[in-house]
Amino acid sequence: TFFHSSSAMANSKWDYVKKFELDDTLLPNCFAIARIDGRGFHRLAKKHNWTRPNDLRALKLMNKAAKCVMEDFDDAVLGYGQSDEYSFLFRREAEVFQRRSAKIITNLVSKFSSAFVYYWPTYFPDVKLQYPPSFDGRIVLYPTDRNLRDYLCWRQADCHINNLYNTTFWALVQQGGMNNNDAQQRLSGTLSGDKHEILFSQFGINYNNEPEIYRKGTVMVKKARPPKISRKAYIKLKQERENSGEDEEDVIMEMYCDIIGDKFWVDYPHLLGNSN
Amino acid sequence: TFFHSSSAMANSKWDYVKKFELDDTLLPNCFAIARIDGRGFHRLAKKHNWTRPNDLRALKLMNKAAKCVMEDFDDAVLGYGQSDEYSFLFRREAEVFQRRSAKIITNLVSKFSSAFVYYWPTYFPDVKLQYPPSFDGRIVLYPTDRNLRDYLCWRQADCHINNLYNTTFWALVQQGGMNNNDAQQRLSGTLSGDKHEILFSQFGINYNNEPEIYRKGTVMVKKARPPKISRKAYIKLKQERENSGEDEEDVIMEMYCDIIGDKFWVDYPHLLGNSN
Amino acid sequence: TFFHSSSAMANSKWDYVKKFELDDTLLPNCFAIARIDGRGFHRLAKKHNWTRPNDLRALKLMNKAAKCVMEDFDDAVLGYGQSDEYSFLFRREAEVFQRRSAKIITNLVSKFSSAFVYYWPTYFPDVKLQYPPSFDGRIVLYPTDRNLRDYLCWRQADCHINNLYNTTFWALVQQGGMNNNDAQQRLSGTLSGDKHEILFSQFGINYNNEPEIYRKGTVMVKKARPPKISRKAYIKLKQERENSGEDEEDVIMEMYCDIIGDKFWVDYPHLLGNSN
Amino acid sequence: TFFHSSSAMANSKWDYVKKFELDDTLLPNCFAIARIDGRGFHRLAKKHNWTRPNDLRALKLMNKAAKCVMEDFDDAVLGYGQSDEYSFLFRREAEVFQRRSAKIITNLVSKFSSAFVYYWPTYFPDVKLQYPPSFDGRIVLYPTDRNLRDYLCWRQADCHINNLYNTTFWALVQQGGMNNNDAQQRLSGTLSGDKHEILFSQFGINYNNEPEIYRKGTVMVKKARPPKISRKAYIKLKQERENSGEDEEDVIMEMYCDIIGDKFWVDYPHLLGNSN
Repeated sequence: TFFHSSSAMANSKWDYVKKFELDDTLLPNCFAIARIDGRGFHRLAKKHNWTRPNDLRALKLMNKAAKCVMEDFDDAVLGYGQSDEYSFLFRREAEVFQRRSAKIITNLVSKFSSAFVYYWPTYFPDVKLQYPPSFDGRIVLYPTDRNLRDYLCWRQADCHINNLYNTTFWALVQQGGMNNNDAQQRLSGTLSGDKHEILFSQFGINYNNEPEIYRKGTVMVKKARPPKISRKAYIKLKQERENSGEDEEDVIMEMYCDIIGDKFWVDYPHLLGNSN
Repeated sequence: TFFHSSSAMANSKWDYVKKFELDDTLLPNCFAIARIDGRGFHRLAKKHNWTRPNDLRALKLMNKAAKCVMEDFDDAVLGYGQSDEYSFLFRREAEVFQRRSAKIITNLVSKFSSAFVYYWPTYFPDVKLQYPPSFDGRIVLYPTDRNLRDYLCWRQADCHINNLYNTTFWALVQQGGMNNNDAQQRLSGTLSGDKHEILFSQFGINYNNEPEIYRKGTVMVKKARPPKISRKAYIKLKQERENSGEDEEDVIMEMYCDIIGDKFWVDYPHLLGNSN
Repeated sequence: TFFHSSSAMANSKWDYVKKFELDDTLLPNCFAIARIDGRGFHRLAKKHNWTRPNDLRALKLMNKAAKCVMEDFDDAVLGYGQSDEYSFLFRREAEVFQRRSAKIITNLVSKFSSAFVYYWPTYFPDVKLQYPPSFDGRIVLYPTDRNLRDYLCWRQADCHINNLYNTTFWALVQQGGMNNNDAQQRLSGTLSGDKHEILFSQFGINYNNEPEIYRKGTVMVKKARPPKISRKAYIKLKQERENSGEDEEDVIMEMYCDIIGDKFWVDYPHLLGNSN
Repeated sequence: TFFHSSSAMANSKWDYVKKFELDDTLLPNCFAIARIDGRGFHRLAKKHNWTRPNDLRALKLMNKAAKCVMEDFDDAVLGYGQSDEYSFLFRREAEVFQRRSAKIITNLVSKFSSAFVYYWPTYFPDVKLQYPPSFDGRIVLYPTDRNLRDYLCWRQADCHINNLYNTTFWALVQQGGMNNNDAQQRLSGTLSGDKHEILFSQFGINYNNEPEIYRKGTVMVKKARPPKISRKAYIKLKQERENSGEDEEDVIMEMYCDIIGDKFWVDYPHLLGNSN
């Protein structure tokens, strides 16, 4: 109940059932990745005529929902999104919800879902949302910097592979006049270089000039908190900025950059922290 | 990615990170309760001027979101909601998402949250939702019929205790002109009978005539599937009914009844099934 | 340390590492089966010239170790052993070690292993134990009476199937002069009836007259505690019995009976208790 | 069964119960500490008249049991023992028993317990073991080198603190003629330096000259496997050494050294490996 909580005078006969709720605390000092995946987004895309291979409005809406999550969860310092998925990095020392796994992931997926619907009209002003979409979520722990970075490499490589495929596939269909089956056949067994070649020679598309948000996905970085400022002072500072109309952008940066190489991690060392 | 999945040709260097995702399968043959709780609903209520002690629109919106969940999850046969919380019962034999705990609860809380925002305008036509609200979720297992029923008793008793308190408190404030502190003081140490008496003698309110949805909460029962019909046939039947404009009410029933006593469980024996 | 514990004055710098130990409490009100399996017992049997298909000394030693476990764990009310494995039943309401899974199973497997070595000379007076043998252990939860009984059915059926096979196999080898390969070939594809027939017609053995401890395994039942006696009084009673030289047999009964049918469970209703 | 396994022809009716056994795989790439603690060793010490504050025979027996464990578990590269406890370090990349937690810890505690009883007569030739002792066990994961080292610091500091206390306490009792209560009173509130002073001025004992095995505990280090040798070749090599009568000591080294400072870890870098 959220209005008033009567003192715990009663319920003593049945409240033994609370004991059936078991502990699911995450191992301390590991990175935690919270990942969200759209459920049935193939259907969602179709129902709302999303453009293919990428719908910029949908990607921007995903990014907006991700930003809501990162504003809500102080310990989420990095977000990486592509297609219908989003990964959030919680630092080793995160103590959010006492590291209770289900508590963290359900709050996070709830906020994301809620924000996705809430901001839909902002990004699809002319398209009515047909039904409430949903996402699933999971938390995975990574003990080392290398494991954590490899997770993100894996997702960004996945983005690259799929986007190159999809870009070529839809060029064959939309501009090349092929049907889906023929296009699929055409691409079967092709390597990365072959797809670049098809795009360039057949459609004049230089894949490397495609928008980075498609090729790399979106990287959200929460700026390092100034070291000598307490959390309380930091929150006050944040609120002043918000009230003064300063863009929140200066707290969470949205980028479409490479996170596989070392440069990104050298630029933002606070994301990994030290591994003690 | 939801448009096209290129064959798993690549990613071999990094996809070892998938192994860090650990199994969280629920123990077979237990009842599973998935419970959702509003996060920060005190603030949500205030921001949107919900009526007190109960806001019927908010309760109806919760019920609508719950119905969406139950339509989405075939194995959720019972829902119980009160205030800003909702519990869903999955039967012993439920195999939804291969009983993977995080998968079930995240999909469920996501659908609930998404539906809550989606249907807000239906229940609050004149009140703009100020921000995306969120919920947390958890799954708890109960091995016996008795444990399961006691869980629901616990929640319904909680509804009763809180609603009696809140009804009396707000009568003292709204009709009796007390401030919050004085009302709280007045109720401190009172028993159930005392509150009934205050309501009746001071405000002419017979608590037992208060709406059942406030006093008992909402019970959603999914009708038993006709025994000799396959799931496929059943889904077809359901769709025909939907297409013919028949109300979905004849599949999921919304009630405000007692679930502590035996009568409810005698009336709907399929909810517990047999305990083999 | 077991001699003296200095007050926890120090260690404050490093004892944060205790937090990495995670909770593994067993779900309340489920039956817990703790099962122990010999590791590398094929080799152990060979090294110590155990008779085949069954070595009565080894079985009796297993039973003795099991009895030690059951005397040590008040909540272990039933044991079932066959070959190199032993299962122990903890009742729904067992609170041993606050139901911490690793704590229970490690103590149990430790006591079993320790007793196995300790009592070896009693059962193998003329055979020196060549090396310290070991066992593994696991805990599995069962929510219903039926599931629990089916677990025990599964183990006893396993005993039956293996013993019939082994009895026939070793008759062919030891009395029929076959080598192992030929005996295996001979039995390949045979049904239960075929093996009975081989034993009877070829070797004059009526399988049903084989010792029950081989055919059924060993069932250890802890007698129901007299209902109106407190644990303290019960332990005192037990100690008096022990001191008076009364056989402990009157507390834990060793039997070689069927536990698949209903009779056993009707005779010892306290093993299942009631399922509330 | 360990003699013969009949093909899985039967049991189909009941073997669904196997599904109730849930997965407990350890998170990959973390250090795992398996720790064993004596249960009721206060009583064991008393019953067998162990000398106080330390019984060298008991410590040597613990070390022997630990060595058995380390010979049995290839992945256990380090052991640390003091008093009635022993910790074993499994490296990040250990794949023993597919990292199944209960499987690892039960096998380990079983082997330790079994060896403790088996080798008792070697270390206590004149003292008959009165009953089978037991141990409990647990596995704790540590994600970083620092966490892992801090765990071992914690245990070695515990050894130091307890041994200094016990040495002083028993000097007061055994040589100073105090009773236990008075000795405890005398030490209450004393700091480390005070105890050194009591030992030196009252009993002429320089604590730093006490045997290192008491002050530091025992460190067992498994030598690094020669880098270019396969496991198979390594095991063969080990067996040749064993057969040729070479002491196993040259594979597992027993030391009583400091493991808190850096030197130990610089000397044996293979224990931590690299943290990728």
